[in-house]
Amino acid sequence: MKVKVGVNGYGTIGKRVAWAVKEQDDMEIVGVTKTRPSYEASTALREGHPLYAARAEDVDGFEGAGIKVAGTLDDLLKKVDVIVDCTPGGTGERNKDLYAKAGVKAIFQGGEAHELAGISFNALANYHEAWGASAVRVVSCNTTGLVRTLFPLQQAFGIERAFASLVRRGADPADKKGAALNAIEPSLKLPTHHGPDVRTVMHGLDIQTMAVVTPTTLMHLHCISVELKGGPSEKEVLDVWASTPRVRLISGKDGIKNTGQVMELAKDLGRPRGDLMDIAIWKDGIKMVGNTLYY
Amino acid sequence: MKVKVGVNGYGTIGKRVAWAVKEQDDMEIVGVTKTRPSYEASTALREGHPLYAARAEDVDGFEGAGIKVAGTLDDLLKKVDVIVDCTPGGTGERNKDLYAKAGVKAIFQGGEAHELAGISFNALANYHEAWGASAVRVVSCNTTGLVRTLFPLQQAFGIERAFASLVRRGADPADKKGAALNAIEPSLKLPTHHGPDVRTVMHGLDIQTMAVVTPTTLMHLHCISVELKGGPSEKEVLDVWASTPRVRLISGKDGIKNTGQVMELAKDLGRPRGDLMDIAIWKDGIKMVGNTLYY
Amino acid sequence: MKVKVGVNGYGTIGKRVAWAVKEQDDMEIVGVTKTRPSYEASTALREGHPLYAARAEDVDGFEGAGIKVAGTLDDLLKKVDVIVDCTPGGTGERNKDLYAKAGVKAIFQGGEAHELAGISFNALANYHEAWGASAVRVVSCNTTGLVRTLFPLQQAFGIERAFASLVRRGADPADKKGAALNAIEPSLKLPTHHGPDVRTVMHGLDIQTMAVVTPTTLMHLHCISVELKGGPSEKEVLDVWASTPRVRLISGKDGIKNTGQVMELAKDLGRPRGDLMDIAIWKDGIKMVGNTLYY
Amino acid sequence: MKVKVGVNGYGTIGKRVAWAVKEQDDMEIVGVTKTRPSYEASTALREGHPLYAARAEDVDGFEGAGIKVAGTLDDLLKKVDVIVDCTPGGTGERNKDLYAKAGVKAIFQGGEAHELAGISFNALANYHEAWGASAVRVVSCNTTGLVRTLFPLQQAFGIERAFASLVRRGADPADKKGAALNAIEPSLKLPTHHGPDVRTVMHGLDIQTMAVVTPTTLMHLHCISVELKGGPSEKEVLDVWASTPRVRLISGKDGIKNTGQVMELAKDLGRPRGDLMDIAIWKDGIKMVGNTLYY
Repeated sequence: MKVKVGVNGYGTIGKRVAWAVKEQDDMEIVGVTKTRPSYEASTALREGHPLYAARAEDVDGFEGAGIKVAGTLDDLLKKVDVIVDCTPGGTGERNKDLYAKAGVKAIFQGGEAHELAGISFNALANYHEAWGASAVRVVSCNTTGLVRTLFPLQQAFGIERAFASLVRRGADPADKKGAALNAIEPSLKLPTHHGPDVRTVMHGLDIQTMAVVTPTTLMHLHCISVELKGGPSEKEVLDVWASTPRVRLISGKDGIKNTGQVMELAKDLGRPRGDLMDIAIWKDGIKMVGNTLYY
Repeated sequence: MKVKVGVNGYGTIGKRVAWAVKEQDDMEIVGVTKTRPSYEASTALREGHPLYAARAEDVDGFEGAGIKVAGTLDDLLKKVDVIVDCTPGGTGERNKDLYAKAGVKAIFQGGEAHELAGISFNALANYHEAWGASAVRVVSCNTTGLVRTLFPLQQAFGIERAFASLVRRGADPADKKGAALNAIEPSLKLPTHHGPDVRTVMHGLDIQTMAVVTPTTLMHLHCISVELKGGPSEKEVLDVWASTPRVRLISGKDGIKNTGQVMELAKDLGRPRGDLMDIAIWKDGIKMVGNTLYY
Repeated sequence: MKVKVGVNGYGTIGKRVAWAVKEQDDMEIVGVTKTRPSYEASTALREGHPLYAARAEDVDGFEGAGIKVAGTLDDLLKKVDVIVDCTPGGTGERNKDLYAKAGVKAIFQGGEAHELAGISFNALANYHEAWGASAVRVVSCNTTGLVRTLFPLQQAFGIERAFASLVRRGADPADKKGAALNAIEPSLKLPTHHGPDVRTVMHGLDIQTMAVVTPTTLMHLHCISVELKGGPSEKEVLDVWASTPRVRLISGKDGIKNTGQVMELAKDLGRPRGDLMDIAIWKDGIKMVGNTLYY
Repeated sequence: MKVKVGVNGYGTIGKRVAWAVKEQDDMEIVGVTKTRPSYEASTALREGHPLYAARAEDVDGFEGAGIKVAGTLDDLLKKVDVIVDCTPGGTGERNKDLYAKAGVKAIFQGGEAHELAGISFNALANYHEAWGASAVRVVSCNTTGLVRTLFPLQQAFGIERAFASLVRRGADPADKKGAALNAIEPSLKLPTHHGPDVRTVMHGLDIQTMAVVTPTTLMHLHCISVELKGGPSEKEVLDVWASTPRVRLISGKDGIKNTGQVMELAKDLGRPRGDLMDIAIWKDGIKMVGNTLYY
C-alpha cells in the first residue's frame, strides 16, 4: 500500500515535491492546494494532481476561472497520511494545528522555525532522528548545501570550526520579491541564522555564517573556510566528496565558471525543469592552507 | 533511408538542433563538432553524438583532456548529406566554401547575412522557396518571432505597415557577451536590420524596426504596432493566432506577467531544457485602435 | 519677498525639488516632511531644511532617534504659500483636502491622476495654462521626456501621429520596488497611460504608447516613430532639438552608447547628484524614412 | 612651487585622480592623456586639463574629431615631476621604462603587480615606506578597503588571523567588461591575490581571501572574520573605527541596507560624482563571537 501524500502549496517548492513523490514507487500524490487559479493550478491539473482550494474562500476564484476543485485543504487532510507544507515561510505556524487536529503527519520546509516541528532533518546527516516523528522540518536549501559538503568532511576528518559567507540570489527566476536591482545587501544580524540552522542537524558543530543578497536569480554560492583535523590533502578531500551522494564536482577548466553555466550543465544533463539537484563544488577551486580548507 | 545530418558547432544553438534532429524519424545525427573539450563536448558524447574536432589543430586539446574524437570537420563532411552551421555569427562565411567543395547541403543560422545562402527561410512564411536549395539560411530568433505573428495576420487581413520595437536580452543565460550590467543600450543604426530581415521571407512587407538591449538573459520581447486592412476585431485577431502553429496565447490574469514567468511556464509544460519553442503573445495585452493593432 | 515653499515628502523626488527651489532667488524652502528618522531626514537637516513630521504619530519616531522636528505637516502648511507634494503616487489624493483647507497652493507630481489637480503642466508645452491655478500636476518623467522632444517637432513641422515604446527601468537606484531581477515585463493594459498623459499638456496629439519594465536602475529609454508633416530632413530635425532647452544631443561615436554611459556623462558634467536633467537624444541614432522619423 | 603632475589615462580612475590633484594647493595638473576623442576627452578639456594623445598614432583620431591635442605622452613626460599611470591593468608594465627614461617619478595603480614598482602604498598603513621612491604602486580598491578597516584593528588590538570573502561588482557603472548578466562567478584560484596584496602594505599579516563576482555595478562588499588579540568588545571596535580617517560607520536602522542606498547617501552628502570615498561599515552589522569579529 502506498503512502498517501498531500502537498499544501503547489508553487516553486511544491511542484518539485509533487514531482519527486510521483517518482517514488511507494508513495502517491492524493492532492495539491492552490489559493488562486493561476497557470500553476493548470500545471497541477496537467500533471494529474487533484486540485484543492487552500481555503474555503478561494473556491469561488477557481470556479470563476472555470476550474473545478476537488475540495478544500480540510477535505484533502482527510485523505492523506502525510502533508508536505510548501506554503510561504511563516504560514506553516498557522497550519500546524490543522494538521495535528486531522491526525496527519506533517513535513515543513526550511522557511519555518526549527521549533515548529522540534525536529529538523537532512537525509545525509540525521536520517535516524526523524524516524517515526509526527512532524519534521526539512532544512533550507542553503543549510542543506552546507550540510552536504560539511557532514562528509566531519565524518572523514573531524571539523575544528567552519566559517561560511553565503552569496545569495535575490529571488527565484519567476519571482518578484523586492530585491534591489543593482545592489548588494548584507544580512546585518550576525552571525546569520544559517549557522544555528546547520546545528539543528549537525549538533555541536562550531560554525559561523554571514550572508549577502545579490541581484541574480540563479543559485546561491558559498565561500567556506573550514579547519579540518589531521590536515588532509586536497586530493583526500575531493575523494570524500566524490563518494558523497548528491555532491557534484565540477571544473572551471571544462568551461563551467559561473552559476549560469552550472545551470546550463543541469539542462545538458537533461534534468527535469533544468534543476541541478546536486551541490556543485569546483574541484579546481579548493585550497588547503595548513589545516584550513577553502572552497 | 534517413537523411544524414552533421552539426558544425555544438553550442547553445547546435545542441538544440541536434536534439530536434534526433526527434525526427527520417533524419539522424552523424556527428557534431566542438573546438574545445568543454562540458558541452561531454554533453555531446553523453547524448550519443559522435564528436569531431572543428579544426585539425583542435585535436590535441581533446586528447589532452582524455577525449577521443572521431575525426575533424573534414571527415564529418564526407559522411553527411546536410550540415547545419551553428558556429558563431560571421564564421559561416568561411565555412561556406568547405561545404560546397564537399558537396554537402548547408543550413546557416540567422547570425549570417542573407546573401551568404541567397535564400532565407521560415517554415511558416516561405517553406516552398527553400525546396531543393543547396544552401539556405534560417532567419534569427527575433525575425522568426516577428514572422510567426505577422505572417498569419497578413494572410488573414493584409498588412498596411508595421513597426516593432525589440527589447532584447543582453546575453544567453550561460554567456558573457559584454552587455552592460545596469544599462539600456539602443541600436543606433536605424531602422535596424530586423525589418529587412523579415522581408527576406515576407517579401515586400512594409516594416520598420528599432531595438534596445537590456540586462536580462531571458527572452526577447517585441512591442509591435501594425496597421491591418479591413480593421478586424481583437477577437478575430486572437482567433487567427490561436490556429497558428507555434504561437501560444498567454494571459497576465493567469499570473504570467513577465518573461521570467513565461520561462517558468515552459518548465511547467515539461519542455526540454525549459525552452518555450513557441512565440508567446499576451492575449490580454493586445489592443485595436482604429485599424492599428498593438501587441 | 520670496515665495515660501514646503516640500511634503523629502525622498527621491522631494530632495531634488528642495534643491531646485534653493537655487532660485525668488523662492525659499520653509520646511520639508519625512515619516521616519532615516538617513534622508539627516540629509534634510544637513541641507538646512527645517524638518517636519509628516503626521502627528510620526513625531515619537524622530524623538526616539534623537531628532527634534519643527512640527508636523499641519504646522508647515500654516507657514507656506506653496506646497510641493512629493509623496508616493496615490497619496496626493488624501493630501489634497488638507492643502485646500489650509489655503495653500499645491503642486502634485506625475504619479497622481490628472483629475486630482485638473491642470497638468509642462514648462515647454503649456506654461500659460497653469498661470494662477490653485493646484497643478507636473507630468511624470516619461511624459515630460516625450513632450520635450515631440513639442518642438509639432511647433516646427506638425505631427500627423506618433507611437512610442517606453523601455523603463525597474526601480530607482536605491529602491526595492519588486521588479523582477532577470525578466522583461510589459504593461498589458494597452495603449498605456502615457499617451493620454501627453495629451494633458499637448492637447489633441495623436499618440499611442506601449511600455515594458526591464531590470535596470538607470534611466528610461523611448523608441519613437513619429509621422511629421512636410517631411523635414534629419538635419532640420536635429536643428530644432539643438535649440530646444533641456534637450541634449549625444553621440554613440563619442563613446556614449548606453544609459550607463549617459549617467557617466552627467557626472563628467559635474551635475549635482549625477543627474542629467536633460532629455538625451542620440544624434547618430535617428532616421527619417519617408515622412516618419525614428529616434 | 607646485609639484607638476601628469595623468596617463583619463578614464574612470584617471579623472578622479586629476580632480583630487586639482583640490590640492601644492600640486597642479600639467596634462592628461587619452587614446580616443571620446566624451571623456571633452570632459578633460572642460575641466581645463591640457589634453595629450597617449601615442603618436592617436593624434589623427583627435584631429579628425576637431580636437587639438597639446602633444603626445612623450611631450607630457618632459613637463611633469610625477606621472600617475591610470591605464588599464597590465599596461603599466610597458610604460614603466618610458617613465624611467624620462626621469619622471611614477605612481601605478592596483591593477599592476607589486613587483612593477617594488613598493606598494596605503596612506594609512605604510606612508613612510614610499618616501622618496621613484616608483610606487597604490593598492587596489579592494585591498585598500581591507587595509583601512584591518590596520586600525591591528594597531589597537593585534590580529591573530583574518579571512575575507569579497563580493565584487561585475563592472564599473559605464563599463561593459564581460561579466555574466545573471550569475555569480567565483575566483577559482584560491586563496585569491587580495591576501598577498594586503601583505604588501601590512607585512606579515595572516590573511586569506576568497572572491566572487556578482552582476551589479555599485561597490564591492566584504564579509570579514578576524581573530583579535585580547578580545575587545564591539563598542571598543566601533570606537577604533570611529576615529579612523575615511572609515564611515553607517546603520541599517537609518534605512541604509544595501550598496545602492550607500551610493544614495554619497549623493546626499554632496560628494563629487556621487562617490563615497570612505569605507562604509555597518555599525549594526558587526558581531564578536569569542575573540572573532565578524563584519
